Amino acid sequence: MTGRLRPAVLGATGYAGVELVRLLVDHGWVEKPLLLRRSGMGAGSDLADLFPALPEPYEFHPLDWVALRKQGVKLVFLATPHEISRSVAPVAIEEGFRVIDLSGAWRLKQARNRAIYGFGDEDSLTAAELTRKAVYGLPELNGDCISGAALVANPGCYATSIILALAPLLQAGLLDRQRGIICDSKSGVSGAGKEPTDRTHFVSVADNLSAYSVFNHRHCGEIVEQLQLDTSELVFTPHLLPIPRGILSTIYVRLTRTTQATEIETCYREFYARQRWVRVFATPRLPQIRFSLFTNYCDLGFCLAEDHQRLVIVSCLDNLLKGAAGQAIQNMNLMYGWKEDQGLR
Amino acid sequence: MTGRLRPAVLGATGYAGVELVRLLVDHGWVEKPLLLRRSGMGAGSDLADLFPALPEPYEFHPLDWVALRKQGVKLVFLATPHEISRSVAPVAIEEGFRVIDLSGAWRLKQARNRAIYGFGDEDSLTAAELTRKAVYGLPELNGDCISGAALVANPGCYATSIILALAPLLQAGLLDRQRGIICDSKSGVSGAGKEPTDRTHFVSVADNLSAYSVFNHRHCGEIVEQLQLDTSELVFTPHLLPIPRGILSTIYVRLTRTTQATEIETCYREFYARQRWVRVFATPRLPQIRFSLFTNYCDLGFCLAEDHQRLVIVSCLDNLLKGAAGQAIQNMNLMYGWKEDQGLR
Amino acid sequence: MTGRLRPAVLGATGYAGVELVRLLVDHGWVEKPLLLRRSGMGAGSDLADLFPALPEPYEFHPLDWVALRKQGVKLVFLATPHEISRSVAPVAIEEGFRVIDLSGAWRLKQARNRAIYGFGDEDSLTAAELTRKAVYGLPELNGDCISGAALVANPGCYATSIILALAPLLQAGLLDRQRGIICDSKSGVSGAGKEPTDRTHFVSVADNLSAYSVFNHRHCGEIVEQLQLDTSELVFTPHLLPIPRGILSTIYVRLTRTTQATEIETCYREFYARQRWVRVFATPRLPQIRFSLFTNYCDLGFCLAEDHQRLVIVSCLDNLLKGAAGQAIQNMNLMYGWKEDQGLR
Amino acid sequence: MTGRLRPAVLGATGYAGVELVRLLVDHGWVEKPLLLRRSGMGAGSDLADLFPALPEPYEFHPLDWVALRKQGVKLVFLATPHEISRSVAPVAIEEGFRVIDLSGAWRLKQARNRAIYGFGDEDSLTAAELTRKAVYGLPELNGDCISGAALVANPGCYATSIILALAPLLQAGLLDRQRGIICDSKSGVSGAGKEPTDRTHFVSVADNLSAYSVFNHRHCGEIVEQLQLDTSELVFTPHLLPIPRGILSTIYVRLTRTTQATEIETCYREFYARQRWVRVFATPRLPQIRFSLFTNYCDLGFCLAEDHQRLVIVSCLDNLLKGAAGQAIQNMNLMYGWKEDQGLR
Repeated sequence: MTGRLRPAVLGATGYAGVELVRLLVDHGWVEKPLLLRRSGMGAGSDLADLFPALPEPYEFHPLDWVALRKQGVKLVFLATPHEISRSVAPVAIEEGFRVIDLSGAWRLKQARNRAIYGFGDEDSLTAAELTRKAVYGLPELNGDCISGAALVANPGCYATSIILALAPLLQAGLLDRQRGIICDSKSGVSGAGKEPTDRTHFVSVADNLSAYSVFNHRHCGEIVEQLQLDTSELVFTPHLLPIPRGILSTIYVRLTRTTQATEIETCYREFYARQRWVRVFATPRLPQIRFSLFTNYCDLGFCLAEDHQRLVIVSCLDNLLKGAAGQAIQNMNLMYGWKEDQGLR
Repeated sequence: MTGRLRPAVLGATGYAGVELVRLLVDHGWVEKPLLLRRSGMGAGSDLADLFPALPEPYEFHPLDWVALRKQGVKLVFLATPHEISRSVAPVAIEEGFRVIDLSGAWRLKQARNRAIYGFGDEDSLTAAELTRKAVYGLPELNGDCISGAALVANPGCYATSIILALAPLLQAGLLDRQRGIICDSKSGVSGAGKEPTDRTHFVSVADNLSAYSVFNHRHCGEIVEQLQLDTSELVFTPHLLPIPRGILSTIYVRLTRTTQATEIETCYREFYARQRWVRVFATPRLPQIRFSLFTNYCDLGFCLAEDHQRLVIVSCLDNLLKGAAGQAIQNMNLMYGWKEDQGLR
Repeated sequence: MTGRLRPAVLGATGYAGVELVRLLVDHGWVEKPLLLRRSGMGAGSDLADLFPALPEPYEFHPLDWVALRKQGVKLVFLATPHEISRSVAPVAIEEGFRVIDLSGAWRLKQARNRAIYGFGDEDSLTAAELTRKAVYGLPELNGDCISGAALVANPGCYATSIILALAPLLQAGLLDRQRGIICDSKSGVSGAGKEPTDRTHFVSVADNLSAYSVFNHRHCGEIVEQLQLDTSELVFTPHLLPIPRGILSTIYVRLTRTTQATEIETCYREFYARQRWVRVFATPRLPQIRFSLFTNYCDLGFCLAEDHQRLVIVSCLDNLLKGAAGQAIQNMNLMYGWKEDQGLR
Repeated sequence: MTGRLRPAVLGATGYAGVELVRLLVDHGWVEKPLLLRRSGMGAGSDLADLFPALPEPYEFHPLDWVALRKQGVKLVFLATPHEISRSVAPVAIEEGFRVIDLSGAWRLKQARNRAIYGFGDEDSLTAAELTRKAVYGLPELNGDCISGAALVANPGCYATSIILALAPLLQAGLLDRQRGIICDSKSGVSGAGKEPTDRTHFVSVADNLSAYSVFNHRHCGEIVEQLQLDTSELVFTPHLLPIPRGILSTIYVRLTRTTQATEIETCYREFYARQRWVRVFATPRLPQIRFSLFTNYCDLGFCLAEDHQRLVIVSCLDNLLKGAAGQAIQNMNLMYGWKEDQGLR
């Protein structure tokens, strides 16, 4: 077993963190992950409740770079709030570790898009440099850059579902951006994080649906940067669904010219021909949330109007897998030259 | 108690029918409704389970126009499938009864919109004439016509949520129809009817979300007819939510000119100033499904983009009340000159 | 409108409080309730979200006994945590108000049962005296005492469902207490209160079921005191259901002798013959949670084993109505000599 | 890949069948399973919807024993209704196949317990003989017999959760059977099967809880036979939970003597010391449904009353895994001498 990669995880008790640890334990090609706790945080006493499916109790270690190196750790996952990732990642990189960050801290290249996170134009020279070097970890678009990256910024869950739905059409020049791109997304509650709030109380969510962050959700920045859109071309409205996990995005676009459904399907199939984790549905069959739940798939389907110009695309994924921990594993596989589906089947 | 209106209900065992009977029993100004069964249908044995909140067991009577007249019935509610309504309503009208029909049978004036229901260009002379005379029962738009109507076609649940959200802006000339109107609606399962199917099985719906009838849902016809839109200007996508009842429609439009949020709010408030059952929320507060659940309200809220041109409207209602039985009671109140909220508070 | 009772409510923002305010507003025989806030607590800004079904915005007043008297208030509802009720009720009584307390503060006569709430043997002379004078507000058992009570201790939700199921059999001498009484109860999440915690987070509750407080739930004391049981005769296990509201208790007992099902049904029917808010189901039909949801009913049904000795009773109610606010209204109606279902139909 | 076992599955489209196929595909030591359809049944067209997580489309083959043998099939899983299993299993056995049957057809040795399934005292000589030879497939109790069995009767989901909770105490002589054993079980809707009915309609189940089959559920027979109880000693009440999957059984027993909690825990731990798929929780920590969901574990926990005599046991499992398809795989592993967790981790 020597010689195998040993990963460490900071933030293992959040929803994405728990999922990530589970995937790492079952991965097959990495050793049991080291779980780290930040100074000042208790180790928690309910790990058995957090990781009920794991074969043995887990213990937490303090975050100590020297100790990590001694234990052979070379890769650190940050499943932490973005403020923490913003401060921890530069140190980790400087100490020689590779980092996969699941927060929004390093996803955005443009300062005006980062503002919503409260990051100044640049916090420090290091942060500025690292922002430039960080690779947006969407394997289907940036696979080559991810392989060699020191810092991978794992994409947002909503952003993943939307970017993967739009990229093929944009590249093919089929999408009339100026007519506007409407993204109506619906997400399960785990996407809102583990913090108990009025908003995540069972009684607030059950039997309900609500829209939020209209015109100003953080993931807008990722979407416009990755797809090179103008902010005014995108409308994105997220909704909170009464389910634990899963995302469905319904996307409304207009094509640049009258097009046959087969041409659109071909466009998607060719774009994702060599991609393991995107499934294209034959129109008019549409993905549903439950089809991709507990998998790393992003499922794509569409319906074309009779005028052959207006298009509705439906994109589904599991926000904790393809939208977070599963994609992080996919990125790790790319970084170490492993099969893209290792540990994800 | 003599002299009070006595209504009859055909189709009292469906979701809307049960709700309607409950409202009629508690209405205050009408006598206990007569429940009718169609010939060939058993009376069912589980009325106690259907109407658990009603004070006494109910019995079903055969549909016999003479007997109905003898018992003083003057108004018949049809909570039946549209094929049944299409055949029963003409007879009821000819026999001298007034009718409120909750199905889609009489909502559409234009043959091309009716085609989706399988009604021929005209089934018969009577049907043709009745189609012309039927009044679309949306009280906030057609109150005057409803008062004197013999046949009221109670609107669809989705259509109600969308028409009420758009009518004020269209009348004010604020809405740029040619840029397209996108309606992304989400409905609880009672909207799909009581018939047990694979689609309504608990395991199919729970923890899931799915889009359906993209570009070809029956309610499109109502929306375009009532708002005088061109079919090509409307995109409507319904989704099935894992909740028993409630609808939320997220509507995306573009304004004809840059506009202030206060102007839009004023437009809505003035349009609905004398309407009891529409609530306009102060921007940026948005309605949620649970706010209007178990009430007859349609709740409207909106967010305006920074460019003052792109607008997101959120419209919520309870599909079994304002979207069906509650609106039917509201129509009855108008037809008999009663207070619009009698029996609905 | 002068001369009508004007009630005040402290704790109107909790789940039971919101329900109580809604019932008082629609009651018909009382004036609009005054909402009180404790010193040091903000009035909150989201009243419109809390009371979405109420016709007008509500404001909160500071708790000032002199001002309350001036405004004609004579009855105060406490929908507060038990510690608050324990300190506020004695003052209110001394100031001459009648009090209906929805917490557990005044339900228990025996010090050993009160211990679980952290109340000392007696906090003060006043508390000791008030504990004696407080009437346990279960109208079906204590109607006579409630009429003249100064302080009514509104029963717990679980306790109501269990006491009403057992009282008729115990009084008839049919229940073999020494063989043990097993109460397996399941409650919706609103019973756990509005405080957001890990336990009430949507993701913790959805798709789950859990037992808690086995052998030591607070409501045990109420049940044994009201039914004059020995603690060792009762086993009570509550469970947290993934639904917003409603309780179902499945109760297992053994009869003192072989008995016919008709005798048991008669026993229940006679005991509750004059009670408006208990419904006895004809065996073997059993209540379900949804039958009593949004009503003030407690529904009772049972199945008898072939040996005519082992009995399973199922008891259902809405924990926010018959289990809290509805029962409080029922108690108010008794205290002022009104019809027991005023404001509850 | 030659030489590996090739299994066939009849009834692959039910909930347990789908789960079984998924497990077989990922098992690692068996070849891709052959899916069989009964004559007269269409192959269905929505396999992609049924098996969304499977890497490739599946086709169905007619049930033809000769063809099966030619394709190297030696083991047949029946995930069929019990009437079908009752008629197909004898033929399969006679044709030389080994059979794992997931229905209730072959679980019961005593004719009086089988009556509830509608099987006559014996349908035929073959059935009588096969009933005797069939092995009840609960690996933790009958592992030795399962290894060599021709026909394994995979246990019921409720029965598994209850038998595993009681067997250790009964064997240790700690359980006072004559004082009665109360089993209050709650199951997700997939346990009620895939047939769409009024009972499984989303609107009937959501926000609800209901008890059913009190004193006469089919699984009673399995429990009393396997634990050698008298029918009068067991009360079993199942309830339908508003969740897709998972079972929690709360079991109430009385001990034969005052006992320490540590002794009970030791009793459980020793009984299951060598068992991979039973987890014993340290008291007073209790299992919840979500801990064992999507795993093959049966989780056991308990609370002891202060009198050291009354005991509450909580038992949880996933009804489609340890309660059906997972246990079937576990049985297959035993039958072929493989590791008990192969394909189940």
